Amino acid sequence: MSYKIGLDISGGDFAPSEIIKGAMLARNQLHEDIVLIGVKEEIERQLALNKFPASEFSVVHAPEKIEMAEPPATSVRRKRNSSITIAAQLLKEKKIDAFVSCGNTGAVVCASTLKLGLIEGVERPGIGLMMPSRTGISLVIDVGANIDCKPMHLFQYGIMASVYYRAVLGKENPTVGLLNIGEEASKGSGLIKHVHKLFSSSSLNFIGNVEAKDIFSGKCDCIVCDGLIGNIALKVAEGSAEAIGRFLIETMTKGFLGKIGILLAKNNLRKFKRFMDYAEYGGAPLLGIDGIVIIGHGRSNALAVKNAIRVACNELSHDLNARIKRRVNEICQDSGIRQILAG
Amino acid sequence: MSYKIGLDISGGDFAPSEIIKGAMLARNQLHEDIVLIGVKEEIERQLALNKFPASEFSVVHAPEKIEMAEPPATSVRRKRNSSITIAAQLLKEKKIDAFVSCGNTGAVVCASTLKLGLIEGVERPGIGLMMPSRTGISLVIDVGANIDCKPMHLFQYGIMASVYYRAVLGKENPTVGLLNIGEEASKGSGLIKHVHKLFSSSSLNFIGNVEAKDIFSGKCDCIVCDGLIGNIALKVAEGSAEAIGRFLIETMTKGFLGKIGILLAKNNLRKFKRFMDYAEYGGAPLLGIDGIVIIGHGRSNALAVKNAIRVACNELSHDLNARIKRRVNEICQDSGIRQILAG
Repeated sequence: MSYKIGLDISGGDFAPSEIIKGAMLARNQLHEDIVLIGVKEEIERQLALNKFPASEFSVVHAPEKIEMAEPPATSVRRKRNSSITIAAQLLKEKKIDAFVSCGNTGAVVCASTLKLGLIEGVERPGIGLMMPSRTGISLVIDVGANIDCKPMHLFQYGIMASVYYRAVLGKENPTVGLLNIGEEASKGSGLIKHVHKLFSSSSLNFIGNVEAKDIFSGKCDCIVCDGLIGNIALKVAEGSAEAIGRFLIETMTKGFLGKIGILLAKNNLRKFKRFMDYAEYGGAPLLGIDGIVIIGHGRSNALAVKNAIRVACNELSHDLNARIKRRVNEICQDSGIRQILAG
Repeated sequence: MSYKIGLDISGGDFAPSEIIKGAMLARNQLHEDIVLIGVKEEIERQLALNKFPASEFSVVHAPEKIEMAEPPATSVRRKRNSSITIAAQLLKEKKIDAFVSCGNTGAVVCASTLKLGLIEGVERPGIGLMMPSRTGISLVIDVGANIDCKPMHLFQYGIMASVYYRAVLGKENPTVGLLNIGEEASKGSGLIKHVHKLFSSSSLNFIGNVEAKDIFSGKCDCIVCDGLIGNIALKVAEGSAEAIGRFLIETMTKGFLGKIGILLAKNNLRKFKRFMDYAEYGGAPLLGIDGIVIIGHGRSNALAVKNAIRVACNELSHDLNARIKRRVNEICQDSGIRQILAG
């Protein structure tokens, strides 16, 4: 049985052309049913341009677009016919099984929360981001859905990430760490110290505070932080990777020997570029929403779009949200946890 | 006239050997008077090992050490004879003009605040970090002194960084930006929105919110954030640079052609390494303290130590703290600013 994945054609820096190319790639490689949501004429034009049979996709017309810089809440309220709000509505009505958008992140979070609501027991949605580490993947949550976090929100992020890591990435008893400026339990803001207590008393595989360098070291599978910190961490990682890459190319290709050297090392450089490329890792799951929603990077190319669709299918095939619901309620109803939350 | 710079010999991952080597480098190249503060026997042994004349330095014996992982406040209170507390005391008594430590950052902030107090009008000290950008240097403040920030603290960080950038780095009317998850004034936490208003009403060259990628783009000279976010941003930048560097070396030297290629590109690779090396940029000024204090990176090598000493001398020669005092009081006593703070 194949899944029906809704794809927002109007969101992303390279929409609609790269998004449609991603849909074609996914159709050819993953064989799922893909529902293209966006301006009908644009979709038809792009498919014709790429000589791809329109019959391979379903199309839902969404005449309005929410731009990348628009304020999320107002734009979702006002643009009822935008691709993002229509996608959330289709998912609510179970006309699709999941949806993927590379558009305005805030609007995706807002429309999903409003239309679909949260998984029973979950208090806030969080965006989980898979980042390459020395030994595998660090799942960092939240990277921008929730910038004014309460202890319970961060605690539940840890639970949801842990369920995701086990169910989708297939690791038994994944480790959970709390992002802080030092490893000692005495360090950090009041919020962080409170959350540390919650994790310590839970049945999660909590390894304590971790530092930002551990996102890359692979010391910890799931790394919990508030959305402001997580978003800035993500942007710093991207920014430094870009700066390093640019400097590397500028420096390395100087001089005759350098040019020959780079030519000889070309194959390896390509591998390096691939390691650095977020597109390989696909979209970020929006966890906690009562429905499967994947947020792609604004700069997603066709490969990134295809991989984001793959992430959605993985979540569906592992029945992620039912597992999250079970585990969140099991852990949060523990009397020890409730006592710490009350204190 | 030369300055008297106190140097904490006991702090840092490679103390005392690299710290003493840094002192020797500074003595040879900068010709300032350097006062070595630490365990006398260790200092003498290291100087003898390096066959460096002991008469080139003054030495102040400090028998105790505050370890890198010790809780700052308690260790400063208990270890009255540690190199850090003695250095702060010497600066208070004006027996030295500035001090440099690569030791426990929290302990340096704590000892400096307790012994020296703050510049009149300043409410919290902040650590400014100079990071290489596309066009020059981004001065990011605070990267770890103050993790529970109020609006006035962040506002004064902007003022102090602006004074530093102008006085020490020599740029007229440097730009100031507020680190946030988006550029729009409507984005971010309540704290950030409040500080945005303060900056907008001030005479600083405020360019609004900036994103973390702008630390590298060079869009903005001074970037203001709270110490938790700043510290995590710094660690992410270091971590991703390390991860990329390691991966680059592992990938690039694979295969015969790759090995030859790297050999040919060796000179350029060295330039790249230098760009990535924090040691080139020296120590981080602890701004707001009534005295010149420079915090070196825990992993400082001799070059980083020498450069941190150079940073201290630059601050002294530009009479930094008198300028900060003047400017902070001028801006913070403005009636418009006081009104926003009260509201």
